[in-house]
Amino acid sequence: MTEPTAPDAPATLPRGGAAHPAAGGPAAFDVYDTTLRDGAQQEGMNLSVADKLAIAPLLDELGVGYIEGGWPGAIPKDTEFFARAAKELDLRHAVLAAFGATRKPGVRAWDDPQLRALLDSEAPVVTLVAKSDSRHVERALRTTREENLAMVADSVRLLAGEGRRVVVDAEHFFDGFRFDPAYARDVVLAAVEAGAETVVLCDTNGGMLPSHVTEVVRDLRAALGTADPLTRLGVHAHNDSGCAVANSLAAVEAGAVHVQGTVNGYGERTGNAELLSVVANLELKTGRSVLVPPADGGGLAEMSRIAHQISEITNIAPFARQPYVGVSAFAHKAGLHASAIRVDPDLYQHIDPQQVGNDMRMLVSEMAGRASIELKGRELGFDLAGQDEVLTRVTNRVKDAEAQGYTYDAADASFELLLAEEVDGARPAYFRVESWRTIVERAGSRGTPATAEATVKLHAGGERIVATGEGNGPVNALDHALRLALQRVYPELAAFELIDFKVRILDAMHGTDAVTRVLIETSDGQTAWSTVGVGPNLIEASWEALTDSAIWGLRNRGIAPR
Amino acid sequence: MTEPTAPDAPATLPRGGAAHPAAGGPAAFDVYDTTLRDGAQQEGMNLSVADKLAIAPLLDELGVGYIEGGWPGAIPKDTEFFARAAKELDLRHAVLAAFGATRKPGVRAWDDPQLRALLDSEAPVVTLVAKSDSRHVERALRTTREENLAMVADSVRLLAGEGRRVVVDAEHFFDGFRFDPAYARDVVLAAVEAGAETVVLCDTNGGMLPSHVTEVVRDLRAALGTADPLTRLGVHAHNDSGCAVANSLAAVEAGAVHVQGTVNGYGERTGNAELLSVVANLELKTGRSVLVPPADGGGLAEMSRIAHQISEITNIAPFARQPYVGVSAFAHKAGLHASAIRVDPDLYQHIDPQQVGNDMRMLVSEMAGRASIELKGRELGFDLAGQDEVLTRVTNRVKDAEAQGYTYDAADASFELLLAEEVDGARPAYFRVESWRTIVERAGSRGTPATAEATVKLHAGGERIVATGEGNGPVNALDHALRLALQRVYPELAAFELIDFKVRILDAMHGTDAVTRVLIETSDGQTAWSTVGVGPNLIEASWEALTDSAIWGLRNRGIAPR
Repeated sequence: MTEPTAPDAPATLPRGGAAHPAAGGPAAFDVYDTTLRDGAQQEGMNLSVADKLAIAPLLDELGVGYIEGGWPGAIPKDTEFFARAAKELDLRHAVLAAFGATRKPGVRAWDDPQLRALLDSEAPVVTLVAKSDSRHVERALRTTREENLAMVADSVRLLAGEGRRVVVDAEHFFDGFRFDPAYARDVVLAAVEAGAETVVLCDTNGGMLPSHVTEVVRDLRAALGTADPLTRLGVHAHNDSGCAVANSLAAVEAGAVHVQGTVNGYGERTGNAELLSVVANLELKTGRSVLVPPADGGGLAEMSRIAHQISEITNIAPFARQPYVGVSAFAHKAGLHASAIRVDPDLYQHIDPQQVGNDMRMLVSEMAGRASIELKGRELGFDLAGQDEVLTRVTNRVKDAEAQGYTYDAADASFELLLAEEVDGARPAYFRVESWRTIVERAGSRGTPATAEATVKLHAGGERIVATGEGNGPVNALDHALRLALQRVYPELAAFELIDFKVRILDAMHGTDAVTRVLIETSDGQTAWSTVGVGPNLIEASWEALTDSAIWGLRNRGIAPR
Repeated sequence: MTEPTAPDAPATLPRGGAAHPAAGGPAAFDVYDTTLRDGAQQEGMNLSVADKLAIAPLLDELGVGYIEGGWPGAIPKDTEFFARAAKELDLRHAVLAAFGATRKPGVRAWDDPQLRALLDSEAPVVTLVAKSDSRHVERALRTTREENLAMVADSVRLLAGEGRRVVVDAEHFFDGFRFDPAYARDVVLAAVEAGAETVVLCDTNGGMLPSHVTEVVRDLRAALGTADPLTRLGVHAHNDSGCAVANSLAAVEAGAVHVQGTVNGYGERTGNAELLSVVANLELKTGRSVLVPPADGGGLAEMSRIAHQISEITNIAPFARQPYVGVSAFAHKAGLHASAIRVDPDLYQHIDPQQVGNDMRMLVSEMAGRASIELKGRELGFDLAGQDEVLTRVTNRVKDAEAQGYTYDAADASFELLLAEEVDGARPAYFRVESWRTIVERAGSRGTPATAEATVKLHAGGERIVATGEGNGPVNALDHALRLALQRVYPELAAFELIDFKVRILDAMHGTDAVTRVLIETSDGQTAWSTVGVGPNLIEASWEALTDSAIWGLRNRGIAPR
């Protein structure tokens, strides 16, 4: 890398759509993922280099065009990411983008260490954030409007001259354009004339409504005049008004051909535009083909799995109601419609869930009818189609149980045991409980920790087993004691782990006299299953859910009672 | 109520905007909440009658025009809700709406028991769901297109004739209109001509994009021709495409004057339009005044608190990134912008968070809530205005406590004790606990009831007291033992009764290893107060809330430690 002889001379302008000298050029439509950079700004999220290296191939598999990896030079972890990515990642389709800022005021671009670090990252695409709101130029950046334009032009020209494809993120663009349209337009023109491939209009504060976006993009295009057809525009939205997905679509409808967002909508405050929803809407509802997954799979049909795998890595619980990919996204509760859904699912779904790798689920609810139980049975592998008597018995049991406070819409495993019991005539007799007891005590005043222990006596494998477990609470202690006892006969239980525990007091007007419902989720590392217990007493309800969980886990592994 | 002489004769048509014979009429713009009905369809949500009676006053305080309470006649719990609501609720502004369906095919409206149950509910507004997609009429309802139109007209006419204000929810309207616009329009006309006050266009499957909504509403209005200015249109959106908020706004921009949604976006699949975001966008970004809070407070500025209180009742963890009201909604991960944000927060926020009762938070240098703590203190009778040092100490304690999992939103009494402790230097020493223990056991197999007992040892009134209580669960037993022990010295405690008990597991990824938060509500027949406890163990957390409750109750009665 040598200093260019005329760093500030006008360059030949590569334009959107045309072939670009470095690393190909933009596609007709670009999907640009910023999960690893802007998404990581989310409260409570902290991605390691290893996390980023694990997420990038999933984004590649999805088929995004660009993966913004971070800000090399400014954040040491991100410098390391780009260095390791160059060696370790084998992206089949997506291109890595390094994020950075325009040069500092009053410094030559070539002398700005931050810009040099972007070149050093060797990312083929560099995305520069540039101020486009004149109030931010004056009050936050504290420089002149002219100097800011020069900062944009110099920085883009330097990077483009070194063979990088340059994207400019015009920060606070929508607020800026609505306040001072001429200046915001000048920033776009400065970027394009210096060789930026795409200028991305950012709703940095996230407060726009779709009608504002439509208006601003339309007015900008008018203000660009003859430069309009030469300018590739993109959009970067945040969800502060709850409209990030719609705002992204509005910009695309107004002519943007590049859309930025994050998987699962991660990001600062209310998050960025949820990229999966944006992409699914564009592909399935506007007929655009925007993803380019690798030839051997991936793409839209793998979206749900990819979303969940990424949430495993970020360790942020998936949002059940997330459009397209959430576990509830195609879950139907209404008993009223179950028979119609069975006949004609298209009438009740906006898309076929398989298109995004998700599934329709029927929830067994208090409005449950025979039709929804039959459907649910089919989902669990029980063909109840002809069996009217079984269906009636199951429907009645579900209704009775729900009247007592049970709920099966979040406890598939308990429902499956109930169903199996009615079909087979009895539930599998893995063990017989003689008694259990749990003691919680605190032997001191405030601040002394309490202790919990539990003793379980049961019969299994022809023996009488007594086991005592400790825990940080009574349910934890009971869980330990039960598993300790059962592992004598069923060592397979060692792999089971309690991963979630929810308590709900029903009919709260009676205080602790009320009925308690406990939902438990257990995992064996591969599958997770949920069970429910109900009782006048939280411990009793928990015990029921714990034993159902052990039984379902053993039955699911094909283990016979010993 | 007598049978009308000519049930199918054309009625005089009440029109939108005009005064209506029963219970007033619509406002210029109607905000219609369906949290209690459509929101309750959410997977895992199960609202009791008591829950609904607790949520309704919060919606009233927010300032919605209508509270849809459920489907009386179809769901026994909802029948009970309307009966109890009539006696127990004192809504200051909002009107209750009962939801139901048009009459069955081939039955006279007057003979349809479901319609009779709607009249019996005595709700001043009845919302009827009507099919407007000809495919649903033929394939799901299995009747003729003509009969469906008659079902709409007859049902509306019956209810309007009995003095009810009638809203018609045109189910699957957008899909229906795009498939068969003439039929969908005919359904709207049938409803309006029979006396419906408002016809609500429903995106039942939730798959619309804003551009579709704009187009359908515009084309419908053209198709209505001369009936257009007489027809009050509303919108009911679901979030399957991630655009429910934007779709609601698009309909309003195209002329809808009634918007339905749910608090926190609860609802089946991906949920309904999040009503708080819709309302905040309309009020703060389009300049419409759509809420009518009671004269003594509430409204937009209480939105964040109301959203959180409702999530405590539904026991569904609030979504941190929820627009406007989420805990992260105005949380800045600082870094680059920290100093600029402090100088000029307006540059970095789409609105002032106080407008919706939320707070800006800096995630690096937390500056949470001094102002709100001062305000809260004033509400509880502590003037902290000049006392900077106390204010700092309290703010720091609250921040520490919240980081551990405490919440004071719903536990005023615990907050008051904390405040009193910082102001007075110590908490009142009514008693000193030596130890406690609780035992739960079941001496038999499934079906045998479990028993619970607890022993408390404490010092009060100069004595050492040991008391044992029984209960149907460990917390109930501890509550009995604690009160038994304390009544020896403080007989006033006999009047206290535990009336509510809520448990929330925080950080659910660690199962029973997670932290447990308990909220307890106690009443002495006149006042009710709430306390909070947090611990690795549910029993420990409950104990803390129980002791706080006893202390607050004694202190509040002006009783000195004995």
